[in-house]
Order: sequence, then structure tokens, then C-alpha cells
Amino acid sequence: MNKEAILHIPNSRFCFALNDNTVILRLRMSRNDLIGNVYVVYGGKYDFFEKQNRLLLERSYTDDLFCYYQAKLTLDDLRLVYIFEIKHNNKTTYYSEDGLTDSFNFKYNYFNSFQLAYINQIDVHREVEWMRGAVFYHIFVDRFFRGDMEKEDSYINLKWGAPPNSKSFAGGDLKGITAKIGYLADLGINVLYLTPVFRSRSNHKYDISDYFNIDQHFGSNEDFRKLILKAHRHGIRIVVDAVFNHCGEDLAQFQDVMENGKASPYFNWFIINGDKPVKNPLNYECFAACDYMPKFNTSNQELQQYLLDITAFWMKEYDIDGWRLDVSDEVSHNFWRKFREHVKAIKADCVIIGENWHDANPFLLGDQYDSIMNYAYTKACYDFFADGLISADGFARRLSGLLMRNTTQVNTMMLNILDSHDTHRFLTLVKGNTDKLICALAVTFMYMGAPGIYYGAEIGMEGNHDPDSRRTFDWSKADEANPLTKLIKELITLKKREELKTGDIKLSSQDGLFLLERASETKALKLWVNNTGADLHLILTGAVVLEHNFTGPVLRNDGFVIEDISVKNTSKV
Amino acid sequence: MNKEAILHIPNSRFCFALNDNTVILRLRMSRNDLIGNVYVVYGGKYDFFEKQNRLLLERSYTDDLFCYYQAKLTLDDLRLVYIFEIKHNNKTTYYSEDGLTDSFNFKYNYFNSFQLAYINQIDVHREVEWMRGAVFYHIFVDRFFRGDMEKEDSYINLKWGAPPNSKSFAGGDLKGITAKIGYLADLGINVLYLTPVFRSRSNHKYDISDYFNIDQHFGSNEDFRKLILKAHRHGIRIVVDAVFNHCGEDLAQFQDVMENGKASPYFNWFIINGDKPVKNPLNYECFAACDYMPKFNTSNQELQQYLLDITAFWMKEYDIDGWRLDVSDEVSHNFWRKFREHVKAIKADCVIIGENWHDANPFLLGDQYDSIMNYAYTKACYDFFADGLISADGFARRLSGLLMRNTTQVNTMMLNILDSHDTHRFLTLVKGNTDKLICALAVTFMYMGAPGIYYGAEIGMEGNHDPDSRRTFDWSKADEANPLTKLIKELITLKKREELKTGDIKLSSQDGLFLLERASETKALKLWVNNTGADLHLILTGAVVLEHNFTGPVLRNDGFVIEDISVKNTSKV
Repeated sequence: MNKEAILHIPNSRFCFALNDNTVILRLRMSRNDLIGNVYVVYGGKYDFFEKQNRLLLERSYTDDLFCYYQAKLTLDDLRLVYIFEIKHNNKTTYYSEDGLTDSFNFKYNYFNSFQLAYINQIDVHREVEWMRGAVFYHIFVDRFFRGDMEKEDSYINLKWGAPPNSKSFAGGDLKGITAKIGYLADLGINVLYLTPVFRSRSNHKYDISDYFNIDQHFGSNEDFRKLILKAHRHGIRIVVDAVFNHCGEDLAQFQDVMENGKASPYFNWFIINGDKPVKNPLNYECFAACDYMPKFNTSNQELQQYLLDITAFWMKEYDIDGWRLDVSDEVSHNFWRKFREHVKAIKADCVIIGENWHDANPFLLGDQYDSIMNYAYTKACYDFFADGLISADGFARRLSGLLMRNTTQVNTMMLNILDSHDTHRFLTLVKGNTDKLICALAVTFMYMGAPGIYYGAEIGMEGNHDPDSRRTFDWSKADEANPLTKLIKELITLKKREELKTGDIKLSSQDGLFLLERASETKALKLWVNNTGADLHLILTGAVVLEHNFTGPVLRNDGFVIEDISVKNTSKV
Repeated sequence: MNKEAILHIPNSRFCFALNDNTVILRLRMSRNDLIGNVYVVYGGKYDFFEKQNRLLLERSYTDDLFCYYQAKLTLDDLRLVYIFEIKHNNKTTYYSEDGLTDSFNFKYNYFNSFQLAYINQIDVHREVEWMRGAVFYHIFVDRFFRGDMEKEDSYINLKWGAPPNSKSFAGGDLKGITAKIGYLADLGINVLYLTPVFRSRSNHKYDISDYFNIDQHFGSNEDFRKLILKAHRHGIRIVVDAVFNHCGEDLAQFQDVMENGKASPYFNWFIINGDKPVKNPLNYECFAACDYMPKFNTSNQELQQYLLDITAFWMKEYDIDGWRLDVSDEVSHNFWRKFREHVKAIKADCVIIGENWHDANPFLLGDQYDSIMNYAYTKACYDFFADGLISADGFARRLSGLLMRNTTQVNTMMLNILDSHDTHRFLTLVKGNTDKLICALAVTFMYMGAPGIYYGAEIGMEGNHDPDSRRTFDWSKADEANPLTKLIKELITLKKREELKTGDIKLSSQDGLFLLERASETKALKLWVNNTGADLHLILTGAVVLEHNFTGPVLRNDGFVIEDISVKNTSKV
């Protein structure tokens, strides 16, 4: 037994309340220790010395080095104390805060057992329930569709369809999105995530000069209201980009600081090394090295209140359904905690999705965001489908490990994406191989969390890194007969099944195929993906629900099949 | 190399800001891997792909299974990204968010490097500077000294000196403490921690019925003011017990709920399973199983505000210097976060010390408490000095492991204690062996953090578990000639040395002796403790600063010696 591999951290992703009286426990061990049984011995804080319960843990996930055991405890006494008991070669090892020991003295447990001292309701991370059935569609507004043909459009410098550069304006707007709500509803998506819509100079609108008005290129506040009303009528929710890490230099408060330096009441809203902001040499903090996007000092309480006022305005006046938080990893935890409390008090099921590209667990413990754009998932798909760096088994292990980074409720609310306005188009990374894109989409829809579609993926749009991944939507290809579109629609329909909303997930490989299983109490789906480079035989036991490049027993390379194993396979092999 | 032993967690006790531009990084490996070198390769978030710095980590601590490497980075760019590079047998292994790999592609680092995305000043855990020189003295008020001989004293039912039971009242009060400030100042302590002083029915006052008034047995609010003023004049700070997990059943708000049930505006201040609180069968949450101490619902915002008002009252009106938080592990994180922000806004250097007996790291990340009563330290001293369960080496490993549970600033502010009103007296646990107590005290004063003395330890008071550990102070033994008192005074004087305030700490064993070293840039102290059961020879290289049971080269069993190794040993061996 590899003792050093064993890990548990109380009051963390390894031990958390799922709701008011249910706790999930996880224990990590070496994947090589396929040993006896692991139990949790648990009880109440004040009588554990005399009364202990015991439950066997289940081996749930395996990554490159570790396997993870899990147990779900339903508590009467909300003051949980516990230790683990590991049975190995007829020997029992105890695991407590004192580490691994051959014996455990329950008399002194108040010193060294693990504990989750009490489940306080306010600390429980509540799931946003609609996220279980959510399918996101992500729009870069300037490039989706122009709906307003009357507007002052001298700013437009890109012909629709021409390749964009970083200064291009193509004319997409909110009326355009409103006009296409029918198209989106028909596709089946039910959440729209829009890149920023507030007044900004650039095409991307991440340099905001007025947080209380819709950008004039995109329309008016009234246009925004109409978009939301129409979307809501079609059962589509709207998630808006909260750019709270920085603003545009045109923001009145920054201009005041430019003018008045330390005398400005807004001086401490920014982070300036000197008496006033200077561009050359740059003496204030910015987004990246962009001097036109000064960074906010999110430690400052007045600035915090300003951002909370913006938040309340768009929620109360326009009834938006969620926030995607730009560069959220650089904003203070302190602010995000206030933000969450504020947001959830206004609308309890408003979702909060951070833009953290890295392990964001410290932001995802129930006091800050609900989830993140899952770029670690994106990278796993690069490595498997695009770059061939990992095998089917490696892919299963990677996706397993990612699930163990966060709590169950966060996994359920993850926004899983293959690409975005900040990456290459996935189809371009797989060199235009639509089959590979389709396989990756199948995984995205079957994995835990909400799948996201970057506008135009459904018609096979391509593009390298920004600005090329922000091309204008090619409406000529928006055709019901488009096989890619058809398949995405089928995946969206599938996503509404109970197994994919609430089912457990298992990840593995079999004969070189990647295998993902989702099972609720009575139903189960299996996804098989062939990324081996060769055609393979596959004997199914359930009924085929959806397939691509699968004929009879042959699953071709870059193909997948989803079977319903609660329904018996009736086809002849 | 034991790959599974390797652990780093970004934005945690393994990676944290010490101040506005300094970061501490820790990497854990197997203690058996006494291998090559470990480097951190680091840079700025937006140019890491092209520009990397590199720093060797230092092997700092070793516990039973692991060794811990540390590095301190001073940053220009506050957006830190990094990976580790482990050199072993001419092979380099990279450690990133992708785990251990043979290569690392810096081009894709924005997906999988570790990061501390930005140091926001408001998230930095600021040290309470005076804690570096603090020596606590912990008083159970009813048992320390009676100062008011005029008060209505029919409640007193215990003769001073007689053994107490759980219902005993001995008459100790605030005037008594005020009268003994001279004694305490002479002892040298500089922080008084008082068990609760607000109006309560019991002798311990943990069942508060009025949070805005001093208990009548203890005196008046005016007496409290006088105590604080006198203490402050003598350079002694006052830390007060915040009983916010529960109250006494006499609290008006609970009485209102008893009377009006759900119709009471305070119904949700408590956690009641029914329409009104009932004792038999008990249907509301309490402290432990004590129905006279109903538990507060610290998820409730009005209750939270009430507790914050109490907090502000005692800080603003009486200028107290700190809070010790009773049963703090059962109170919501959400409340403690608000509490901290509130407390620090009133008095930035007010210290917040939780009563968590277990690993409290989730409460100690800078947003909740400053430190805790270090009962894990207490337990280590039990195991080494009282029960002989661990060797000198085991003790060093245990104390090392405890340091790695928390950030540097938390370690600096830990309240290290051998006993309290909730434990046995340490002297009784070591069966009255004063030598062992003295050795344990020497360790307590030399370890990182603030040492705490439970009233009467300095005169050798004994006692088993509560109520026996709450005996009346035996003033007949408060004598300057008492050798135990003398020694404690010397330790208190020693604690003011720079090495013990700011020095690094090393823990090890040598020839069976426990060895603790503290070193600042120019000075260094070594503490040797003999707990072997035999007398041993010890050759010193520095000058003896303080010793007990040490003569010439012989360190007797249950003895210690502290040497100043910045001063050469001039004595002949």
C-alpha cells in the first residue's frame, strides 16, 4: 500500500455538503492499490467516542496516478466526525488527522478525527437546477447577425464573410440575435451566452465605458429588453458577460482619475503606481498589457459597490439569468463573495460562471461562483482528438481526474466547451475533420455539466486563434439538411434525458475505445468513441440511440455510437 | 521517486501571498525521496510562454511520511504562473496542473500551469503584528480572584480552595483580575484571555442571557472598563470570549420564541424542528446536548446583524483587543467572513482566535479567523511528554507537520497551549512531574506562535478534566521564589527576543534529544529537550541562555537547555 498516495482533506472537495443533511466523502489512494475495503467510520461530534457507524466506500474514478473512493452519508446529527478504516492484507490501517496509524483511540477523537463540524445552510452550495438540462450557445455579438438595417453604420468596416482582424466591425447586433431566436429555439439550445453588450469602443466590447447602457453598435437598452423577452418566451435564458476585472479607459471614473490624479474620488478604484495614470512608461495595472483597459482595484469597497449596483441594475430591470465573469481569476475573492450573496438574493437561480482557465476550486466552494468555463476539459479534448497525445484510456483518466477537482454540484454546473472566442475553432484544430468534431461533441454532451456550442460550430465554421475564430456567421450554411446541424440537434434532444441530467458517470476504455456511461436509477446510456485510427468491431448489448460512422458491428475511426442499455439490442450482429 | 506522494495545491496553504508582493510556495514529496533538486519555474501570466524565471526550493520540514520544500518569491508582476521542475537521477519531471509529465509545453501554459492569478490586497491575510511577541494568560473568571468584597454574594457556594463541581460558584470577578494586574504584569504576560464575562446563569458563563452587560457576579460594565484601562496601562491586551454558536435559554429572543413559536420574529434565529421549541423530546439544536444552550442559526441574516452589533459594542465602547470564538467550527463560514470584515474595520489589529480543535485550514485562509487555540499542538505534547507514544523524532515530525497545515502568518499567530478550561491540567497528565511540565513549556515558548498559560500553571496547579481543571487559584503559592514561576518568567523574557519573534524554525532530533532551532538573520537559539528516560551527555557550541536539569555536559531526563549559538560556548566541557 502506497501510504503517501492516500489523501483526504476535511471541509474541501474531499468532504462537502450536497444539501442540508447529505455529505459526500472522497478518499484518494494509489491506483495501483487494488486492495481490500475502505470504510468510513462516522458519528456525531459529541458521542463518537461511544457510538460509531460504518459505511463501505465505493471506488468511483481513476486518473493517471490515483483512484478515488466515494461515499454519500445522510445525517441525523449534522455535526459529522469520522475517520477512515483501510483493510489491506488482513491488516487494518486507520486514517485520521493524525495520518495513518495502526490503532485509533476513540476516547481522544475530539483531537484528531476528521470533521465537518456542522452543516450550516448558508454555506451549502445550492445547485442551479436548470443547469442540469442546459445547452449553451455562445455568441460573439458583432459577428452573429445584423438585425438593424436602419442604424448609423459608418462604423462597419468588415464585409460580412470577409476575414476579420482585431479592428473589424461587421455589424452584428441585438436585433440580429432577436431575429434569430427562432433559429436558436429550433436548434434546441436553451441558454444564450453573449460576449459583452455594454458600451465600449472595441468590437469585442471588453473595454467598457458605460456599464448601464447597451453599446450603440449593438442597439439600445430597449432592444436588450426585447431580446430577453423573446428569448424567455422561447424558453431560452440569457447569460451576460460581467467585465469586472477592468474597464475601458473611456469610463468616466477613469477619465476623472486621468484628469485629477490623487484628488479624484476614484483614484483608489484603480491600481496606480504614482500620482496619476501614465501610459509611457505604463504605471497602472491593466488587463494583460493593454493600457486602454485599466484594471479595477476590486479590493476597494466603493468600487465593489459600483459593480454591485451594475449587477442589480441588469438583473432587476432586464431579468437576465446568469453572469459569465471575465478574467474572474484576477478579481478578489472578497468581491466575488459579495457578488454571489447579492446576485442570489435578487434571483436565487441566477447562474454564476467564472472565466478561470485553471483549477478554480478555491472559487468554487459555494461562496463565489457556481462553475467555470471548463477549459481543462477543452484541453483534454485537444490532447485526445486534435493532438493524439493521450489514448482513450488517458482521456478517460484525464476526464475522471477533472471531476475530482470539484464538488458534485460544481461538476453538474460546469460549462463544457470545445472552443470559444479566446481559442482556435475546434474544427480547425482537428484540421477540418468533421468526424472528429462530431465525436468530441458527443463526449461534450454526455459528460457531466452543461455543453456549450460556440456560434457556428453547428454549421462547421472554422478559424484559428482570435481574431480568426471570430468570423461572421455564414447564414448560407444554416440549413436543416446540414448533417452536422442535424447531429447537434439530436445531441441536444438527448441531453434532456434523465440519465444525462441526474445520472452518475463512469469513464473508462475498452479495446482501445473510449467509453462513457451515464446511469440513473433505472436507465443507462453508453457512449463509445473510436479515435484509434482504425475501424473496430463493437458488439452492442443495448439499442442504438445515436451513431456516427457506425454500421452494424463496425465502428469506424472517428465514429461514435450511443447505446441505451436499459433497452435490449434487438438488431442482429 | 514516489510520484503519488507529490502534492501542490494552488491558492491554498501550498501557495499563498504573505504580503502584497511576496508569495510562499510549498511542494510536498515523500520523505524517502532524498533526491536531486526541486525548482519552481515561474513568470507573469501573459508572458510566461516566452520568459521564465527559476528558483531552487529549500527542503524545510519533514513529517512522518513527507518532506516539504518551500520557496519565497518576490514578484514584480502580481499575476504569478508557475510549474515545478524535479531533477532526479539525471531525469527531469515537470509538475503542473496536468500532473507529472516528462515534458512541458510552455506554449499551452495558459491551460495547465499552476497560478496565483493576482494578489488582491483585500485577500491577503494580514498578520496582527503584536501577536509575534504575545504571551497569553487564560483566566476562568470565577476561579481567579475575588476583588469585590461588597457585592451581593449569596450565590457563592464554594469555599475558595475547595474542589469545584459543575455547579460551583467561588466568587472570582473582574475587580479581582484588576487587583492582580500588577501580579500579571510582573509575570510578564501581555495578553489576557478571559472566558465569557457577559450575563449568564452558570459559573462558566457560556449560556449568555444578555450580551450587552457584564455578568452581575463578575461586576459591572464600568468594572470591565476599569479592568481594560488598567491592563492597557500595563501593556496588557484583553481578548474576550465570543459565544456566538449558541446562547442561554434566558436570552430574551429565545424566550420570545418559547412563548410565540413561529409567530416570533426570532423564530429563525434558532434551528427548531417544529412550531416551537420543546425540551422533551428535544426538538431544537443546542450546544452538544445541553437544552439550556440553544444553538443560533448563524445562516440567518438578522441574527448575524445582532451578533455584529454585539461585536461592535464591546470593541467601540470598551476597546477590547481580540476575540476568542467559542465552538467556532459549528458557526457558518458566511458569518465569520462578515465578522472578520466588521472587526478589522473597527480595529485592524484586533486578533480573532477560533476554538477549532481540528485542522481549521478552511477557516484560516485570511477571510475568517487569524488563528486557533492550537489543540493539535496540545495533543502532540500529550503524546510526547505525558503518554510516551512518540519519540523525540516523532515529536519533531508531528510539530513539523502541524506547521504545514497552515500559512506562515497563521503559524505566527497560533495560540499554543498545553491545557485549558476544557482539558485536564497538563501537570496532572504528566502525573505531577514539574520537570516534564517545564520542558513542555520551554517547547511552547520556542515554537512558532504565541504561548498561552492557563491561570495557575505558573504555580503548579493541578486538576483533571472539567470541573476539576477549574479550581480556585491558590494565591498562597504565588511566590516569587517558586521555581516554576521563576522559570516561566524567564521564558516570557526570552520570548521577546528577535529570533523567537521573527526567526525561522527547524525541528529535528539528535541522539534521542528533541531539538528546536529558531534563527533570525544574525541570531539563533537552540532548545534541547531530554525526554528519553535517561541522563545524556550534550556538548554545546553556544552559550547557555536558560536551562533546567542541566549541569555541565549532562542533560538529565526531563531537562532542557536553550543555547544561543550566535554566542560561542565559553564554558569548559
